Amino acid sequence: MSTLPTPVRSAVVLLSGGLDSATCLAMASSQGYQIHSLSFRYGQRHQYELERAQGLADHYQVASHTVIDINLAAIGGSALTDPSIAVPKSNSVEEIGPHIPVTYVPARNTIFLAIAMGLAEARQALEIFIGVNALDYSGYPDCRPEFIRAFESMANLATKLFVEGHHTLRINTPLIQLSKAQIIAKGLELGVDYSLTLSCYDPGEGGRPCGHCDACLLRAKGFAECGQPDPALA
Amino acid sequence: MSTLPTPVRSAVVLLSGGLDSATCLAMASSQGYQIHSLSFRYGQRHQYELERAQGLADHYQVASHTVIDINLAAIGGSALTDPSIAVPKSNSVEEIGPHIPVTYVPARNTIFLAIAMGLAEARQALEIFIGVNALDYSGYPDCRPEFIRAFESMANLATKLFVEGHHTLRINTPLIQLSKAQIIAKGLELGVDYSLTLSCYDPGEGGRPCGHCDACLLRAKGFAECGQPDPALA
Repeated sequence: MSTLPTPVRSAVVLLSGGLDSATCLAMASSQGYQIHSLSFRYGQRHQYELERAQGLADHYQVASHTVIDINLAAIGGSALTDPSIAVPKSNSVEEIGPHIPVTYVPARNTIFLAIAMGLAEARQALEIFIGVNALDYSGYPDCRPEFIRAFESMANLATKLFVEGHHTLRINTPLIQLSKAQIIAKGLELGVDYSLTLSCYDPGEGGRPCGHCDACLLRAKGFAECGQPDPALA
Repeated sequence: MSTLPTPVRSAVVLLSGGLDSATCLAMASSQGYQIHSLSFRYGQRHQYELERAQGLADHYQVASHTVIDINLAAIGGSALTDPSIAVPKSNSVEEIGPHIPVTYVPARNTIFLAIAMGLAEARQALEIFIGVNALDYSGYPDCRPEFIRAFESMANLATKLFVEGHHTLRINTPLIQLSKAQIIAKGLELGVDYSLTLSCYDPGEGGRPCGHCDACLLRAKGFAECGQPDPALA
Protein backbone atom coordinates (compact mmCIF):
# COMPACT_ATOMS: atom_id res chain seq x y z
CA MET A 1 0.00 0.00 0.00
CA SER A 2 1.24 3.45 -0.87
CA THR A 3 1.31 6.27 1.61
CA LEU A 4 1.95 8.81 -1.10
CA PRO A 5 -0.91 11.17 -1.99
CA THR A 6 -2.68 10.51 -5.27
CA PRO A 7 -1.06 12.81 -7.83
CA VAL A 8 -3.14 15.48 -9.54
CA ARG A 9 -3.45 15.28 -13.31
CA SER A 10 -0.24 17.05 -14.09
CA ALA A 11 2.25 16.83 -16.91
CA VAL A 12 5.86 17.86 -17.36
CA VAL A 13 6.39 19.37 -20.81
CA LEU A 14 9.90 19.74 -22.22
CA LEU A 15 9.97 23.20 -23.74
CA SER A 16 12.86 24.34 -25.89
CA GLY A 17 11.13 27.35 -27.35
CA GLY A 18 11.07 25.76 -30.80
CA LEU A 19 8.15 24.92 -33.06
CA ASP A 20 7.85 21.27 -32.02
CA SER A 21 7.87 21.79 -28.25
CA ALA A 22 5.44 24.72 -28.56
CA THR A 23 3.03 22.44 -30.43
CA CYS A 24 3.54 19.75 -27.80
CA LEU A 25 2.76 22.26 -25.04
CA ALA A 26 -0.43 23.31 -26.85
CA MET A 27 -1.47 19.67 -27.18
CA ALA A 28 -0.87 18.93 -23.48
CA SER A 29 -2.69 22.14 -22.56
CA SER A 30 -5.66 21.26 -24.75
CA GLN A 31 -5.92 17.93 -22.92
CA GLY A 32 -6.46 19.75 -19.62
CA TYR A 33 -3.22 18.94 -17.83
CA GLN A 34 -1.76 21.18 -15.15
CA ILE A 35 1.56 21.93 -16.81
CA HIS A 36 5.06 22.04 -15.41
CA SER A 37 7.29 23.21 -18.24
CA LEU A 38 10.99 22.46 -18.25
CA SER A 39 13.82 24.11 -20.17
CA PHE A 40 17.58 23.71 -20.12
CA ARG A 41 20.47 26.12 -20.23
CA TYR A 42 22.93 23.48 -21.38
CA GLY A 43 25.66 25.45 -23.06
CA GLN A 44 23.81 26.03 -26.32
CA ARG A 45 25.26 28.77 -28.49
CA HIS A 46 22.50 31.25 -27.88
CA GLN A 47 19.98 32.13 -25.19
CA TYR A 48 17.17 33.24 -27.50
CA GLU A 49 15.39 29.91 -27.37
CA LEU A 50 15.22 30.14 -23.56
CA GLU A 51 13.53 33.53 -23.89
CA ARG A 52 11.01 31.98 -26.27
CA ALA A 53 10.41 29.10 -23.86
CA GLN A 54 9.68 31.58 -21.06
CA GLY A 55 7.35 33.50 -23.37
CA LEU A 56 5.46 30.32 -24.26
CA ALA A 57 5.26 29.29 -20.58
CA ASP A 58 3.76 32.69 -19.76
CA HIS A 59 1.36 32.52 -22.71
CA TYR A 60 0.05 29.11 -21.63
CA GLN A 61 -0.05 30.10 -17.93
CA VAL A 62 1.80 26.99 -16.78
CA ALA A 63 1.72 25.95 -13.11
CA SER A 64 5.53 26.15 -12.97
CA HIS A 65 8.39 26.76 -15.37
CA THR A 66 11.77 25.33 -14.37
CA VAL A 67 15.07 26.11 -16.06
CA ILE A 68 17.83 23.63 -15.30
CA ASP A 69 21.41 24.74 -15.79
CA ILE A 70 23.70 21.97 -16.99
CA ASN A 71 27.00 22.50 -18.72
CA LEU A 72 26.83 19.78 -21.36
CA ALA A 73 29.53 21.72 -23.20
CA ALA A 74 31.96 20.06 -20.72
CA ILE A 75 31.18 16.77 -22.47
CA GLY A 76 31.80 18.30 -25.88
CA GLY A 77 31.27 16.65 -29.22
CA SER A 78 28.49 18.83 -30.65
CA ALA A 79 28.23 21.91 -32.83
CA LEU A 80 25.35 23.07 -30.62
CA THR A 81 27.60 23.46 -27.57
CA ASP A 82 31.10 23.72 -29.05
CA PRO A 83 31.84 27.01 -30.84
CA SER A 84 34.81 25.38 -32.62
CA ILE A 85 32.45 23.12 -34.62
CA ALA A 86 30.52 25.00 -37.32
CA VAL A 87 26.76 24.60 -37.68
CA PRO A 88 26.20 23.13 -41.18
CA LYS A 89 24.39 25.41 -43.63
CA SER A 90 22.65 24.46 -46.88
CA ASN A 91 20.29 25.98 -49.40
CA SER A 92 17.62 23.28 -49.38
CA VAL A 93 16.34 20.33 -47.36
CA GLU A 94 17.66 17.99 -50.06
CA GLU A 95 21.24 18.98 -49.20
CA ILE A 96 20.90 17.75 -45.60
CA GLY A 97 22.95 14.56 -45.30
CA PRO A 98 21.59 11.18 -44.18
CA HIS A 99 24.10 10.84 -41.31
CA ILE A 100 23.76 11.92 -37.72
CA PRO A 101 24.54 15.65 -37.91
CA VAL A 102 27.25 17.47 -35.92
CA THR A 103 24.45 19.30 -34.13
CA TYR A 104 23.70 16.05 -32.31
CA VAL A 105 24.45 16.47 -28.57
CA PRO A 106 25.56 13.15 -27.01
CA ALA A 107 22.79 11.69 -24.85
CA ARG A 108 20.83 14.95 -24.81
CA ASN A 109 17.32 13.53 -24.89
CA THR A 110 18.22 10.88 -22.33
CA ILE A 111 19.62 13.53 -20.00
CA PHE A 112 16.63 15.83 -20.53
CA LEU A 113 14.13 12.99 -20.00
CA ALA A 114 15.96 11.85 -16.85
CA ILE A 115 15.67 15.36 -15.40
CA ALA A 116 12.03 15.55 -16.54
CA MET A 117 11.48 12.29 -14.65
CA GLY A 118 12.94 13.84 -11.49
CA LEU A 119 10.70 16.89 -11.90
CA ALA A 120 7.69 14.63 -12.54
CA GLU A 121 8.39 12.84 -9.28
CA ALA A 122 8.87 16.08 -7.33
CA ARG A 123 5.66 17.59 -8.82
CA GLN A 124 3.72 14.31 -8.65
CA ALA A 125 3.11 14.34 -12.39
CA LEU A 126 2.48 11.07 -14.21
CA GLU A 127 2.94 12.37 -17.73
CA ILE A 128 5.90 13.74 -19.64
CA PHE A 129 5.44 15.38 -23.04
CA ILE A 130 8.42 15.62 -25.37
CA GLY A 131 8.29 16.88 -28.95
CA VAL A 132 10.69 14.38 -30.49
CA ASN A 133 10.16 13.50 -34.10
CA ALA A 134 11.36 10.39 -35.86
CA LEU A 135 10.82 11.62 -39.41
CA ASP A 136 12.68 14.88 -39.92
CA TYR A 137 15.37 13.88 -37.42
CA SER A 138 15.74 10.22 -38.24
CA GLY A 139 19.50 10.61 -37.71
CA TYR A 140 19.09 11.08 -33.96
CA PRO A 141 18.90 7.68 -32.25
CA ASP A 142 17.20 9.20 -29.20
CA CYS A 143 14.21 10.39 -31.26
CA ARG A 144 13.05 6.88 -32.19
CA PRO A 145 9.99 5.15 -30.69
CA GLU A 146 12.07 2.16 -29.51
CA PHE A 147 14.27 4.50 -27.47
CA ILE A 148 11.26 6.21 -25.91
CA ARG A 149 9.67 2.88 -24.91
CA ALA A 150 12.99 1.68 -23.39
CA PHE A 151 13.28 4.93 -21.44
CA GLU A 152 9.72 4.52 -20.15
CA SER A 153 10.44 0.97 -18.95
CA MET A 154 13.57 2.16 -17.16
CA ALA A 155 11.77 5.16 -15.64
CA ASN A 156 9.14 2.97 -14.07
CA LEU A 157 11.88 1.11 -12.18
CA ALA A 158 13.82 4.22 -11.21
CA THR A 159 11.89 6.51 -8.95
CA LYS A 160 10.21 6.55 -5.58
CA LEU A 161 6.84 7.76 -6.91
CA PHE A 162 6.62 5.10 -9.58
CA VAL A 163 8.07 2.24 -7.55
CA GLU A 164 6.69 2.90 -4.05
CA GLY A 165 3.61 4.76 -5.24
CA HIS A 166 2.58 2.12 -7.77
CA HIS A 167 1.94 4.77 -10.38
CA THR A 168 3.02 4.60 -14.00
CA LEU A 169 4.96 7.32 -15.73
CA ARG A 170 4.04 7.80 -19.36
CA ILE A 171 6.29 9.48 -21.94
CA ASN A 172 4.01 11.15 -24.49
CA THR A 173 5.50 11.80 -27.93
CA PRO A 174 2.52 13.13 -29.89
CA LEU A 175 4.70 14.43 -32.75
CA ILE A 176 6.90 11.39 -33.21
CA GLN A 177 5.35 10.18 -36.47
CA LEU A 178 4.24 13.55 -37.89
CA SER A 179 5.87 15.49 -40.71
CA LYS A 180 6.81 19.10 -40.00
CA ALA A 181 3.82 20.20 -42.09
CA GLN A 182 1.50 17.98 -40.05
CA ILE A 183 2.94 19.37 -36.81
CA ILE A 184 2.36 22.93 -37.98
CA ALA A 185 -1.17 22.10 -39.18
CA LYS A 186 -1.96 20.56 -35.77
CA GLY A 187 -0.51 23.59 -33.98
CA LEU A 188 -2.43 26.10 -36.10
CA GLU A 189 -5.62 24.12 -35.38
CA LEU A 190 -4.87 24.58 -31.66
CA GLY A 191 -4.15 28.27 -32.13
CA VAL A 192 -0.39 28.15 -31.55
CA ASP A 193 1.21 31.52 -32.21
CA TYR A 194 4.37 30.41 -33.98
CA SER A 195 5.76 33.93 -33.87
CA LEU A 196 6.58 33.10 -30.23
CA THR A 197 8.89 30.25 -31.31
CA LEU A 198 12.45 29.98 -32.62
CA SER A 199 13.83 26.92 -34.43
CA CYS A 200 17.19 28.20 -35.75
CA TYR A 201 20.42 26.59 -34.50
CA ASP A 202 22.46 29.69 -35.24
CA PRO A 203 20.35 32.85 -35.07
CA GLY A 204 21.62 36.37 -35.64
CA GLU A 205 21.12 39.39 -33.45
CA GLY A 206 17.78 39.52 -31.63
CA GLY A 207 17.17 35.86 -32.51
CA ARG A 208 16.73 36.37 -36.26
CA PRO A 209 16.71 32.90 -37.97
CA CYS A 210 19.72 32.24 -40.23
CA GLY A 211 17.53 30.55 -42.85
CA HIS A 212 20.15 27.99 -43.83
CA CYS A 213 20.67 25.56 -40.94
CA ASP A 214 18.84 22.22 -40.97
CA ALA A 215 16.26 23.49 -38.49
CA CYS A 216 15.47 26.61 -40.54
CA LEU A 217 15.20 24.61 -43.77
CA LEU A 218 12.88 21.98 -42.29
CA ARG A 219 10.70 24.68 -40.75
CA ALA A 220 10.45 26.60 -44.02
CA LYS A 221 9.54 23.42 -45.90
CA GLY A 222 6.84 22.64 -43.31
CA PHE A 223 5.18 26.05 -43.60
CA ALA A 224 5.43 25.88 -47.40
CA GLU A 225 3.73 22.48 -47.46
CA CYS A 226 0.97 23.87 -45.23
CA GLY A 227 0.55 26.79 -47.60
CA GLN A 228 1.00 29.15 -44.67
CA PRO A 229 3.48 31.95 -44.04
CA ASP A 230 5.84 31.57 -41.07
CA PRO A 231 4.74 34.32 -38.65
CA ALA A 232 8.24 34.34 -37.11
CA LEU A 233 9.53 35.76 -40.41
CA ALA A 234 6.88 38.49 -40.62
CA MET B 1 29.14 -0.56 -41.58
CA SER B 2 30.38 1.95 -39.10
CA THR B 3 32.75 4.74 -39.98
CA LEU B 4 33.47 5.48 -36.33
CA PRO B 5 36.94 4.59 -35.05
CA THR B 6 37.19 1.57 -32.78
CA PRO B 7 37.14 2.88 -29.21
CA VAL B 8 40.12 2.35 -26.92
CA ARG B 9 39.55 0.39 -23.75
CA SER B 10 38.26 3.26 -21.68
CA ALA B 11 35.81 3.54 -18.84
CA VAL B 12 33.78 6.37 -17.35
CA VAL B 13 33.78 6.13 -13.54
CA LEU B 14 31.23 8.05 -11.50
CA LEU B 15 33.19 9.55 -8.65
CA SER B 16 31.44 11.22 -5.72
CA GLY B 17 34.45 11.28 -3.43
CA GLY B 18 32.84 8.77 -1.09
CA LEU B 19 34.00 5.35 0.01
CA ASP B 20 31.99 3.37 -2.55
CA SER B 21 32.99 5.34 -5.64
CA ALA B 22 36.65 5.37 -4.54
CA THR B 23 36.55 1.58 -4.33
CA CYS B 24 34.86 1.42 -7.71
CA LEU B 25 37.58 3.64 -9.19
CA ALA B 26 40.28 1.38 -7.74
CA MET B 27 38.55 -1.67 -9.22
CA ALA B 28 38.29 -0.12 -12.69
CA SER B 29 41.91 1.04 -12.44
CA SER B 30 43.10 -2.43 -11.41
CA GLN B 31 41.39 -3.82 -14.53
CA GLY B 32 43.59 -1.62 -16.73
CA TYR B 33 41.02 0.81 -18.09
CA GLN B 34 41.91 4.29 -19.21
CA ILE B 35 39.69 6.23 -16.83
CA HIS B 36 37.48 9.24 -17.37
CA SER B 37 36.13 10.19 -13.96
CA LEU B 38 32.94 12.19 -13.62
CA SER B 39 31.64 14.22 -10.69
CA PHE B 40 28.65 16.47 -10.23
CA ARG B 41 28.12 19.81 -8.56
CA TYR B 42 24.37 19.33 -8.26
CA GLY B 43 23.39 21.60 -5.43
CA GLN B 44 24.53 19.34 -2.62
CA ARG B 45 24.90 21.02 0.77
CA HIS B 46 28.68 20.94 0.79
CA GLN B 47 31.57 20.98 -1.65
CA TYR B 48 33.97 18.80 0.36
CA GLU B 49 33.06 15.65 -1.54
CA LEU B 50 34.02 17.34 -4.82
CA GLU B 51 37.43 18.15 -3.37
CA ARG B 52 37.82 14.50 -2.40
CA ALA B 53 36.77 13.40 -5.88
CA GLN B 54 39.45 15.64 -7.41
CA GLY B 55 42.01 14.25 -4.96
CA LEU B 56 41.12 10.68 -5.90
CA ALA B 57 41.22 11.51 -9.63
CA ASP B 58 44.71 12.96 -9.14
CA HIS B 59 45.82 9.97 -7.05
CA TYR B 60 44.70 7.50 -9.72
CA GLN B 61 46.08 9.66 -12.57
CA VAL B 62 42.89 9.49 -14.60
CA ALA B 63 42.90 10.41 -18.32
CA SER B 64 40.30 13.11 -17.65
CA HIS B 65 38.19 14.33 -14.76
CA THR B 66 34.97 16.13 -15.65
CA VAL B 67 32.78 18.06 -13.22
CA ILE B 68 29.27 18.69 -14.47
CA ASP B 69 27.31 21.54 -12.92
CA ILE B 70 23.61 20.84 -12.65
CA ASN B 71 21.23 22.59 -10.29
CA LEU B 72 19.08 19.68 -9.19
CA ALA B 73 18.08 21.85 -6.23
CA ALA B 74 15.66 23.51 -8.71
CA ILE B 75 13.72 20.25 -8.74
CA GLY B 76 13.67 20.09 -4.94
CA GLY B 77 12.35 17.30 -2.78
CA SER B 78 15.59 16.16 -1.09
CA ALA B 79 17.43 16.91 2.14
CA LEU B 80 20.68 16.68 0.17
CA THR B 81 19.85 19.73 -1.94
CA ASP B 82 17.22 21.56 0.12
CA PRO B 83 18.54 23.28 3.26
CA SER B 84 14.99 23.48 4.65
CA ILE B 85 14.84 19.67 5.01
CA ALA B 86 17.01 18.35 7.85
CA VAL B 87 19.43 15.47 7.32
CA PRO B 88 18.24 12.67 9.68
CA LYS B 89 20.64 11.81 12.52
CA SER B 90 20.72 8.64 14.66
CA ASN B 91 22.99 6.91 17.12
CA SER B 92 23.14 3.50 15.42
CA VAL B 93 22.45 1.75 12.14
CA GLU B 94 19.46 0.03 13.74
CA GLU B 95 17.68 3.38 14.05
CA ILE B 96 17.76 3.98 10.29
CA GLY B 97 14.19 3.53 9.01
CA PRO B 98 13.11 1.08 6.31
CA HIS B 99 11.59 3.77 4.06
CA ILE B 100 13.20 5.74 1.28
CA PRO B 101 15.06 8.46 3.19
CA VAL B 102 14.64 12.22 2.74
CA THR B 103 18.21 12.28 1.44
CA TYR B 104 16.93 10.58 -1.73
CA VAL B 105 17.32 12.96 -4.71
CA PRO B 106 14.61 12.34 -7.33
CA ALA B 107 16.05 10.56 -10.38
CA ARG B 108 19.64 11.27 -9.34
CA ASN B 109 21.23 8.04 -10.52
CA THR B 110 19.28 8.13 -13.77
CA ILE B 111 20.44 11.68 -14.42
CA PHE B 112 24.05 10.87 -13.48
CA LEU B 113 24.08 7.73 -15.64
CA ALA B 114 22.55 9.61 -18.58
CA ILE B 115 25.35 12.19 -18.39
CA ALA B 116 27.92 9.40 -17.97
CA MET B 117 26.50 7.87 -21.13
CA GLY B 118 27.02 11.15 -23.00
CA LEU B 119 30.60 11.35 -21.71
CA ALA B 120 31.17 7.70 -22.66
CA GLU B 121 30.06 8.50 -26.19
CA ALA B 122 32.21 11.64 -26.42
CA ARG B 123 35.27 9.79 -25.03
CA GLN B 124 34.55 6.57 -26.96
CA ALA B 125 34.33 4.55 -23.76
CA LEU B 126 32.29 1.37 -23.68
CA GLU B 127 32.19 0.91 -19.93
CA ILE B 128 30.60 2.88 -17.12
CA PHE B 129 31.42 2.09 -13.48
CA ILE B 130 29.00 3.20 -10.79
CA GLY B 131 29.30 2.31 -7.11
CA VAL B 132 25.63 1.71 -6.42
CA ASN B 133 24.78 -0.73 -3.70
CA ALA B 134 21.51 -2.58 -3.28
CA LEU B 135 22.08 -3.76 0.30
CA ASP B 136 22.81 -0.76 2.49
CA TYR B 137 20.63 1.51 0.35
CA SER B 138 17.78 -0.83 -0.45
CA GLY B 139 15.41 2.12 -0.07
CA TYR B 140 16.71 3.77 -3.25
CA PRO B 141 14.89 2.31 -6.27
CA ASP B 142 17.67 3.44 -8.62
CA CYS B 143 20.27 1.29 -6.84
CA ARG B 144 18.64 -2.01 -7.74
CA PRO B 145 19.97 -4.44 -10.37
CA GLU B 146 16.68 -4.39 -12.33
CA PHE B 147 16.99 -0.61 -12.72
CA ILE B 148 20.61 -0.88 -13.90
CA ARG B 149 19.70 -3.53 -16.50
CA ALA B 150 16.79 -1.41 -17.77
CA PHE B 151 19.09 1.61 -18.03
CA GLU B 152 21.63 -0.41 -19.99
CA SER B 153 18.96 -1.59 -22.45
CA MET B 154 17.79 1.98 -22.95
CA ALA B 155 21.37 3.27 -23.32
CA ASN B 156 22.10 0.89 -26.13
CA LEU B 157 19.20 2.39 -28.11
CA ALA B 158 20.04 5.99 -27.27
CA THR B 159 23.38 7.09 -28.62
CA LYS B 160 25.22 7.45 -31.88
CA LEU B 161 28.23 5.38 -30.76
CA PHE B 162 26.17 2.46 -29.61
CA VAL B 163 23.57 2.56 -32.38
CA GLU B 164 25.64 3.55 -35.44
CA GLY B 165 28.89 2.14 -34.15
CA HIS B 166 27.44 -1.26 -33.24
CA HIS B 167 29.21 -1.18 -29.89
CA THR B 168 27.65 -2.16 -26.58
CA LEU B 169 27.74 0.05 -23.52
CA ARG B 170 28.04 -1.85 -20.27
CA ILE B 171 27.09 -0.47 -16.86
CA ASN B 172 29.40 -2.06 -14.29
CA THR B 173 28.14 -2.18 -10.71
CA PRO B 174 30.83 -4.19 -8.93
CA LEU B 175 29.59 -3.20 -5.46
CA ILE B 176 25.90 -3.79 -5.97
CA GLN B 177 25.64 -6.97 -3.91
CA LEU B 178 28.44 -6.27 -1.39
CA SER B 179 28.03 -5.25 2.23
CA LYS B 180 29.87 -2.11 3.35
CA ALA B 181 32.40 -4.34 5.13
CA GLN B 182 32.98 -6.35 1.95
CA ILE B 183 33.44 -3.13 -0.05
CA ILE B 184 36.01 -1.85 2.44
CA ALA B 185 37.82 -5.22 2.48
CA LYS B 186 37.96 -5.19 -1.32
CA GLY B 187 39.26 -1.61 -1.33
CA LEU B 188 41.93 -2.30 1.28
CA GLU B 189 43.06 -5.30 -0.79
CA LEU B 190 43.48 -2.89 -3.74
CA GLY B 191 45.32 -0.37 -1.60
CA VAL B 192 42.62 2.31 -1.49
CA ASP B 193 43.57 5.13 0.85
CA TYR B 194 40.21 5.78 2.51
CA SER B 195 41.57 8.89 4.21
CA LEU B 196 41.05 10.50 0.78
CA THR B 197 37.30 9.83 0.91
CA LEU B 198 34.31 11.45 2.60
CA SER B 199 30.95 9.74 3.12
CA CYS B 200 29.13 12.15 5.44
CA TYR B 201 25.92 13.84 4.22
CA ASP B 202 26.38 16.77 6.59
CA PRO B 203 30.04 17.37 7.43
CA GLY B 204 31.35 20.10 9.69
CA GLU B 205 34.11 22.58 9.00
CA GLY B 206 36.94 21.23 6.85
CA GLY B 207 34.80 18.21 5.90
CA ARG B 208 34.79 16.61 9.36
CA PRO B 209 32.22 13.74 9.35
CA CYS B 210 29.18 14.34 11.60
CA GLY B 211 29.19 10.72 12.78
CA HIS B 212 25.41 10.47 13.02
CA CYS B 213 23.92 10.61 9.51
CA ASP B 214 23.04 7.34 7.74
CA ALA B 215 26.20 7.48 5.64
CA CYS B 216 28.48 7.96 8.66
CA LEU B 217 26.78 5.16 10.60
CA LEU B 218 26.98 2.67 7.72
CA ARG B 219 30.62 3.53 7.13
CA ALA B 220 31.51 3.09 10.82
CA LYS B 221 29.71 -0.26 10.92
CA GLY B 222 31.63 -1.38 7.81
CA PHE B 223 35.04 -0.53 9.25
CA ALA B 224 34.07 -2.13 12.58
CA GLU B 225 33.04 -5.37 10.84
CA CYS B 226 36.37 -5.35 8.99
CA GLY B 227 38.19 -4.91 12.29
CA GLN B 228 39.93 -1.87 10.80
CA PRO B 229 40.09 1.74 11.91
CA ASP B 230 38.66 4.36 9.53
CA PRO B 231 41.72 6.36 8.40
CA ALA B 232 39.47 9.37 7.70
CA LEU B 233 38.86 9.63 11.45
CA ALA B 234 42.56 9.46 12.36
